[in-house]
Amino acid sequence: MTTLTHDAHVETQIRQLVAERDRAIVARNLDAHVAQFADDLVFFDLKPPFQARGAEAYRQAWEQCLPCLPESFGIETRDLRILVGGGIAVAHRLMRLTGFSDDAPQTWVRDTSVYRRADGEWQVVHAHGSVPFDPCTQKAVLSDSV
Amino acid sequence: MTTLTHDAHVETQIRQLVAERDRAIVARNLDAHVAQFADDLVFFDLKPPFQARGAEAYRQAWEQCLPCLPESFGIETRDLRILVGGGIAVAHRLMRLTGFSDDAPQTWVRDTSVYRRADGEWQVVHAHGSVPFDPCTQKAVLSDSV
Repeated sequence: MTTLTHDAHVETQIRQLVAERDRAIVARNLDAHVAQFADDLVFFDLKPPFQARGAEAYRQAWEQCLPCLPESFGIETRDLRILVGGGIAVAHRLMRLTGFSDDAPQTWVRDTSVYRRADGEWQVVHAHGSVPFDPCTQKAVLSDSV
Repeated sequence: MTTLTHDAHVETQIRQLVAERDRAIVARNLDAHVAQFADDLVFFDLKPPFQARGAEAYRQAWEQCLPCLPESFGIETRDLRILVGGGIAVAHRLMRLTGFSDDAPQTWVRDTSVYRRADGEWQVVHAHGSVPFDPCTQKAVLSDSV
Protein backbone atom coordinates (compact mmCIF):
# COMPACT_ATOMS: atom_id res chain seq x y z
CA MET A 1 0.00 0.00 0.00
CA THR A 2 2.89 2.34 0.82
CA THR A 3 4.36 1.85 -2.65
CA LEU A 4 1.02 2.42 -4.34
CA THR A 5 0.50 5.61 -2.39
CA HIS A 6 4.01 6.78 -3.23
CA ASP A 7 3.52 6.04 -6.94
CA ALA A 8 0.18 7.85 -6.99
CA HIS A 9 1.83 10.84 -5.35
CA VAL A 10 4.64 10.89 -7.93
CA GLU A 11 2.13 10.51 -10.75
CA THR A 12 0.29 13.60 -9.49
CA GLN A 13 3.59 15.48 -9.31
CA ILE A 14 4.53 14.55 -12.89
CA ARG A 15 1.07 15.51 -14.21
CA GLN A 16 1.51 18.89 -12.56
CA LEU A 17 4.98 19.32 -14.06
CA VAL A 18 3.70 18.51 -17.57
CA ALA A 19 0.85 21.01 -17.12
CA GLU A 20 3.25 23.67 -15.77
CA ARG A 21 5.60 23.11 -18.71
CA ASP A 22 2.71 23.62 -21.13
CA ARG A 23 1.49 26.74 -19.34
CA ALA A 24 5.01 28.19 -19.48
CA ILE A 25 5.23 27.68 -23.27
CA VAL A 26 1.78 29.16 -23.86
CA ALA A 27 2.90 32.18 -21.78
CA ARG A 28 6.17 32.25 -23.80
CA ASN A 29 8.05 31.95 -20.53
CA LEU A 30 11.07 29.96 -21.70
CA ASP A 31 12.88 30.33 -18.36
CA ALA A 32 10.07 28.53 -16.54
CA HIS A 33 9.73 25.95 -19.30
CA VAL A 34 13.42 25.10 -19.58
CA ALA A 35 13.85 25.00 -15.77
CA GLN A 36 12.40 21.47 -15.89
CA PHE A 37 15.13 20.23 -18.23
CA ALA A 38 18.42 18.77 -17.00
CA ASP A 39 21.86 19.79 -18.22
CA ASP A 40 22.53 16.22 -19.37
CA LEU A 41 19.28 16.13 -21.38
CA VAL A 42 19.37 14.13 -24.62
CA PHE A 43 16.48 15.04 -26.90
CA PHE A 44 15.07 13.79 -30.17
CA ASP A 45 13.18 16.74 -31.64
CA LEU A 46 10.51 17.03 -34.34
CA LYS A 47 13.03 18.78 -36.57
CA PRO A 48 16.68 17.87 -37.30
CA PRO A 49 19.20 17.16 -35.92
CA PHE A 50 18.48 13.54 -35.06
CA GLN A 51 19.57 14.17 -31.48
CA ALA A 52 20.81 17.11 -29.43
CA ARG A 53 22.12 17.56 -25.90
CA GLY A 54 21.56 19.95 -23.02
CA ALA A 55 18.89 22.29 -21.70
CA GLU A 56 20.54 25.21 -23.55
CA ALA A 57 20.19 23.51 -26.97
CA TYR A 58 16.59 22.68 -26.08
CA ARG A 59 15.95 26.31 -25.20
CA GLN A 60 17.41 27.43 -28.54
CA ALA A 61 15.09 25.08 -30.43
CA TRP A 62 12.10 26.73 -28.73
CA GLU A 63 13.53 30.22 -29.31
CA GLN A 64 13.53 29.48 -33.04
CA CYS A 65 10.03 28.03 -32.89
CA LEU A 66 8.12 30.60 -30.81
CA PRO A 67 8.19 33.48 -33.36
CA CYS A 68 6.48 31.16 -35.90
CA LEU A 69 3.52 30.60 -33.55
CA PRO A 70 0.54 32.95 -33.38
CA GLU A 71 0.30 35.43 -30.51
CA SER A 72 -2.26 33.30 -28.71
CA PHE A 73 -2.34 29.51 -28.71
CA GLY A 74 -3.06 26.60 -26.40
CA ILE A 75 -1.88 23.01 -25.97
CA GLU A 76 -4.27 20.06 -26.04
CA THR A 77 -3.24 16.71 -24.53
CA ARG A 78 -4.70 13.28 -25.15
CA ASP A 79 -3.92 9.86 -23.65
CA LEU A 80 -1.40 11.07 -21.09
CA ARG A 81 0.09 8.09 -19.24
CA ILE A 82 2.59 8.30 -16.40
CA LEU A 83 4.91 5.39 -15.58
CA VAL A 84 6.54 5.62 -12.16
CA GLY A 85 9.72 3.90 -10.95
CA GLY A 86 11.88 4.87 -7.98
CA GLY A 87 13.90 7.80 -9.29
CA ILE A 88 12.60 7.68 -12.87
CA ALA A 89 9.15 8.59 -14.21
CA VAL A 90 7.96 8.66 -17.81
CA ALA A 91 5.13 10.75 -19.30
CA HIS A 92 3.88 9.94 -22.79
CA ARG A 93 0.99 11.52 -24.64
CA LEU A 94 -0.39 12.89 -27.87
CA MET A 95 -0.43 16.69 -27.98
CA ARG A 96 -1.25 19.48 -30.40
CA LEU A 97 -1.33 23.25 -30.54
CA THR A 98 -4.80 24.81 -30.57
CA GLY A 99 -6.55 28.15 -30.86
CA PHE A 100 -4.81 29.46 -33.95
CA SER A 101 -6.56 32.60 -35.17
CA ASP A 102 -7.02 31.23 -38.69
CA ASP A 103 -8.64 28.11 -37.19
CA ALA A 104 -6.15 25.93 -39.07
CA PRO A 105 -6.16 22.57 -37.30
CA GLN A 106 -2.67 21.65 -36.14
CA THR A 107 -1.14 18.17 -36.34
CA TRP A 108 -0.98 15.84 -33.38
CA VAL A 109 2.53 15.10 -32.10
CA ARG A 110 3.77 12.12 -30.07
CA ASP A 111 5.60 13.24 -26.93
CA THR A 112 7.67 11.10 -24.55
CA SER A 113 9.40 12.73 -21.56
CA VAL A 114 11.64 10.90 -19.09
CA TYR A 115 11.96 12.54 -15.68
CA ARG A 116 14.75 11.76 -13.19
CA ARG A 117 14.63 12.76 -9.50
CA ALA A 118 17.80 14.30 -8.06
CA ASP A 119 17.96 16.12 -4.72
CA GLY A 120 14.18 15.80 -4.41
CA GLU A 121 13.53 17.53 -7.73
CA TRP A 122 12.23 16.01 -10.96
CA GLN A 123 13.93 17.04 -14.21
CA VAL A 124 13.56 15.87 -17.80
CA VAL A 125 16.67 13.93 -18.89
CA HIS A 126 15.27 12.60 -22.16
CA ALA A 127 12.59 13.96 -24.50
CA HIS A 128 11.36 12.48 -27.76
CA GLY A 129 8.87 14.31 -30.00
CA SER A 130 7.77 13.09 -33.43
CA VAL A 131 5.17 12.47 -36.07
CA PRO A 132 5.10 9.23 -38.11
CA PHE A 133 6.04 9.14 -41.81
CA ASP A 134 4.80 7.34 -44.90
CA PRO A 135 7.62 5.13 -46.27
CA CYS A 136 6.10 5.22 -49.79
CA THR A 137 6.09 9.02 -50.14
CA GLN A 138 8.73 9.73 -47.45
CA LYS A 139 6.34 12.47 -46.30
CA ALA A 140 5.73 13.23 -42.66
CA VAL A 141 2.18 12.28 -41.70
CA LEU A 142 0.54 15.39 -40.24
CA SER A 143 -2.96 14.87 -38.94
CA ASP A 144 -5.45 16.72 -36.77
CA SER A 145 -7.39 13.53 -36.05
CA VAL A 146 -6.01 10.53 -34.21
CA MET B 1 26.91 2.25 -2.71
CA THR B 2 24.17 -0.36 -2.66
CA THR B 3 21.98 1.76 -4.93
CA LEU B 4 24.80 2.39 -7.38
CA THR B 5 25.58 -1.30 -7.54
CA HIS B 6 21.93 -2.13 -8.04
CA ASP B 7 21.55 0.47 -10.80
CA ALA B 8 24.70 -0.78 -12.55
CA HIS B 9 23.30 -4.31 -12.40
CA VAL B 10 19.98 -3.20 -13.91
CA GLU B 11 21.80 -1.23 -16.60
CA THR B 12 23.67 -4.37 -17.61
CA GLN B 13 20.38 -6.31 -17.69
CA ILE B 14 18.71 -3.70 -19.93
CA ARG B 15 21.70 -3.59 -22.29
CA GLN B 16 21.46 -7.37 -22.61
CA LEU B 17 17.71 -7.16 -23.30
CA VAL B 18 18.19 -4.56 -26.04
CA ALA B 19 20.91 -6.71 -27.62
CA GLU B 20 18.72 -9.85 -27.37
CA ARG B 21 15.80 -7.99 -28.95
CA ASP B 22 18.02 -6.95 -31.87
CA ARG B 23 19.41 -10.47 -32.30
CA ALA B 24 15.87 -11.85 -32.40
CA ILE B 25 14.82 -9.46 -35.18
CA VAL B 26 17.96 -10.17 -37.23
CA ALA B 27 17.14 -13.88 -36.85
CA ARG B 28 13.51 -13.10 -37.81
CA ASN B 29 12.45 -14.70 -34.53
CA LEU B 30 9.36 -12.61 -33.76
CA ASP B 31 8.35 -14.79 -30.81
CA ALA B 32 11.61 -14.03 -29.01
CA HIS B 33 11.47 -10.36 -30.00
CA VAL B 34 7.90 -9.74 -28.93
CA ALA B 35 8.33 -11.69 -25.67
CA GLN B 36 9.94 -8.53 -24.24
CA PHE B 37 6.83 -6.44 -24.87
CA ALA B 38 4.00 -6.05 -22.33
CA ASP B 39 0.33 -6.50 -23.10
CA ASP B 40 -0.34 -2.92 -22.01
CA LEU B 41 2.35 -1.58 -24.36
CA VAL B 42 1.65 1.82 -25.94
CA PHE B 43 3.89 2.43 -28.96
CA PHE B 44 4.60 5.32 -31.31
CA ASP B 45 5.89 3.68 -34.49
CA LEU B 46 7.86 5.04 -37.46
CA LYS B 47 4.79 4.57 -39.63
CA PRO B 48 1.14 5.48 -38.92
CA PRO B 49 -0.98 5.19 -36.84
CA PHE B 50 0.17 7.87 -34.39
CA GLN B 51 -0.11 5.38 -31.55
CA ALA B 52 -1.03 1.72 -31.13
CA ARG B 53 -1.53 -0.59 -28.18
CA GLY B 54 -0.48 -4.08 -27.18
CA ALA B 55 2.25 -6.60 -27.94
CA GLU B 56 0.05 -8.22 -30.61
CA ALA B 57 -0.27 -4.96 -32.60
CA TYR B 58 3.47 -4.49 -32.25
CA ARG B 59 4.04 -7.99 -33.60
CA GLN B 60 1.80 -7.29 -36.58
CA ALA B 61 3.78 -4.14 -37.43
CA TRP B 62 6.96 -6.24 -37.58
CA GLU B 63 5.21 -9.00 -39.56
CA GLN B 64 4.41 -6.42 -42.25
CA CYS B 65 7.93 -5.03 -42.16
CA LEU B 66 10.11 -8.16 -42.23
CA PRO B 67 9.26 -9.28 -45.82
CA CYS B 68 10.49 -5.87 -47.06
CA LEU B 69 13.93 -6.42 -45.53
CA PRO B 70 16.73 -8.30 -47.31
CA GLU B 71 17.46 -11.88 -46.32
CA SER B 72 20.49 -10.87 -44.31
CA PHE B 73 20.82 -7.65 -42.34
CA GLY B 74 22.23 -6.34 -39.08
CA ILE B 75 21.42 -3.59 -36.58
CA GLU B 76 23.91 -0.90 -35.62
CA THR B 77 23.47 1.08 -32.39
CA ARG B 78 24.98 4.42 -31.44
CA ASP B 79 24.79 6.47 -28.23
CA LEU B 80 22.83 3.93 -26.19
CA ARG B 81 22.01 5.41 -22.78
CA ILE B 82 20.22 3.57 -19.98
CA LEU B 83 18.34 5.46 -17.26
CA VAL B 84 17.48 3.38 -14.19
CA GLY B 85 14.80 4.10 -11.57
CA GLY B 86 13.20 1.64 -9.13
CA GLY B 87 10.89 -0.46 -11.29
CA ILE B 88 11.34 1.60 -14.46
CA ALA B 89 14.32 1.75 -16.85
CA VAL B 90 14.66 3.64 -20.11
CA ALA B 91 16.93 2.83 -23.06
CA HIS B 92 17.39 5.43 -25.79
CA ARG B 93 19.69 5.24 -28.80
CA LEU B 94 20.19 5.88 -32.48
CA MET B 95 19.96 2.71 -34.57
CA ARG B 96 20.01 1.67 -38.20
CA LEU B 97 19.82 -1.44 -40.31
CA THR B 98 23.09 -2.53 -41.94
CA GLY B 99 24.51 -5.10 -44.33
CA PHE B 100 22.02 -4.69 -47.16
CA SER B 101 23.27 -6.60 -50.22
CA ASP B 102 23.00 -3.54 -52.48
CA ASP B 103 25.09 -1.58 -49.98
CA ALA B 104 22.37 1.07 -49.81
CA PRO B 105 22.98 3.00 -46.60
CA GLN B 106 19.94 2.95 -44.37
CA THR B 107 18.64 5.88 -42.37
CA TRP B 108 19.30 6.30 -38.68
CA VAL B 109 16.24 6.02 -36.45
CA ARG B 110 15.69 7.41 -32.92
CA ASP B 111 14.57 4.69 -30.53
CA THR B 112 13.24 5.12 -26.96
CA SER B 113 12.14 2.06 -24.98
CA VAL B 114 10.64 2.17 -21.49
CA TYR B 115 11.01 -1.04 -19.46
CA ARG B 116 8.93 -1.87 -16.38
CA ARG B 117 9.81 -4.62 -13.90
CA ALA B 118 6.96 -6.88 -12.81
CA ASP B 119 7.45 -10.19 -10.98
CA GLY B 120 11.19 -9.83 -11.42
CA GLU B 121 10.96 -9.55 -15.19
CA TRP B 122 11.59 -6.46 -17.36
CA GLN B 123 9.14 -5.75 -20.16
CA VAL B 124 8.76 -2.86 -22.60
CA VAL B 125 5.61 -0.84 -21.77
CA HIS B 126 6.30 2.10 -24.06
CA ALA B 127 8.28 2.34 -27.31
CA HIS B 128 8.83 5.40 -29.49
CA GLY B 129 10.62 5.18 -32.85
CA SER B 130 10.98 8.09 -35.27
CA VAL B 131 12.96 10.18 -37.72
CA PRO B 132 12.75 13.99 -37.71
CA PHE B 133 11.02 15.94 -40.47
CA ASP B 134 11.63 19.19 -42.33
CA PRO B 135 8.72 21.59 -41.65
CA CYS B 136 9.38 23.47 -44.92
CA THR B 137 9.06 20.44 -47.21
CA GLN B 138 7.08 18.23 -44.78
CA LYS B 139 9.47 15.46 -45.82
CA ALA B 140 10.85 12.95 -43.37
CA VAL B 141 14.57 13.48 -42.91
CA LEU B 142 16.27 10.19 -43.71
CA SER B 143 20.02 10.18 -43.17
CA ASP B 144 22.81 7.64 -42.95
CA SER B 145 25.06 10.09 -41.13
CA VAL B 146 24.34 11.59 -37.71
